[in-house]
Parts: sequence; C-alpha cells; structure tokens
Amino acid sequence: MSDLAGWRRRIDEIDQQLVKLLNERSQCALEIGHLKKAMDLPTWQPQRELDILRNVVMANEGPLDDAAIRRLFERIIDEARSLERHSMEGGSSFGKE
Amino acid sequence: MSDLAGWRRRIDEIDQQLVKLLNERSQCALEIGHLKKAMDLPTWQPQRELDILRNVVMANEGPLDDAAIRRLFERIIDEARSLERHSMEGGSSFGKE
Repeated sequence: MSDLAGWRRRIDEIDQQLVKLLNERSQCALEIGHLKKAMDLPTWQPQRELDILRNVVMANEGPLDDAAIRRLFERIIDEARSLERHSMEGGSSFGKE
Repeated sequence: MSDLAGWRRRIDEIDQQLVKLLNERSQCALEIGHLKKAMDLPTWQPQRELDILRNVVMANEGPLDDAAIRRLFERIIDEARSLERHSMEGGSSFGKE
C-alpha cells in the first residue's frame, strides 16, 4: 500500500473499529457503575485508574510514545466517568446531535 | 457476565486492542506524512480532518455521545500530528520512558 488514498482508507477502517471499541468500553464502564452503586462501593477508585494506565503503557510498542498513550487513555477514562455521572443522574446518557 | 472483575477484564482486553489500533493508526499517519513530503503536499489538510470527524460521528451508535466521540478523535488526531512533526524533525519518534 503506497498511495495516499490507500493509507487514508486504512485509517478510516481503523477509526470505525475505534468508535466501536470506545463505545463497548463505555458500556462496560456503565455496567461497572451500576454494580458499584448496587454494592455501595465508591464510584471513583483511583487505584483502578492507575492500573489501567500502567497496563496500557506496558502494552505500548509505539510509534506513539508512552506519554501520548497515557494522555489518550486519561481522556478515554474521563469520558467514561462523565458518561457514568450523567447516567447516574438519571438522564438519557446518549444523545445524537 | 455480572461481576465487577469480569467487566474489568473485558475493559482490559478492549484497552489492549485500543493500544494496538491507536499505534497502527499513527503508523498510517506517519506513512501519509512521508508521502505528502515526497509529493510536496501541505502537511496539514483541514478538510481531511473534518471528513474524519464526520465519519466517526456518523459511525457512532453510543453510549458515548457525538461530542465525546469528537473530543476523543480530536485528541487522537492531535497526537498523530505531534508524532508526525517529531518524525519530520528527524528525531526518533518513539521513546519508552
């Protein structure tokens, strides 16, 4: 694959998979939120977040560097937390614009 | 799958796939950067970024809302651009900490 259009098509395919996985991940986080609530556990567990960040940095083989992977996952975790908060407040968590 | 540990394992599996895809995507962006340089095309093509954001929002079925997907991909695109810039400056783009 040596042409610009080919590499862009590959990025578009990857992006479709990323959207799917990011949403599946968020659904898992929502389920965990419900379970924690039912079990009366604290919503925010900082040690779990540190474990997640350690795991993704360990899995990283580049070309993104570890700091970039950490920044990306901090954002992913943030979005999951924000979704969980909205869901707990009882509103619909998903709104197409 | 109804237990906390099970959902967390699923998140960890998804994260491994995300790390792999994010790196594969960045590698594609690097290849595109090299091609653009060889073809004397501008590095930054704002229309392509708008197309990417439109595509991912169209693919989004939630539970993340469109604004969250857009924020996540803006960050993903940012990291790719930053990697490309470092690569063009001739340095090694990947450094484990």
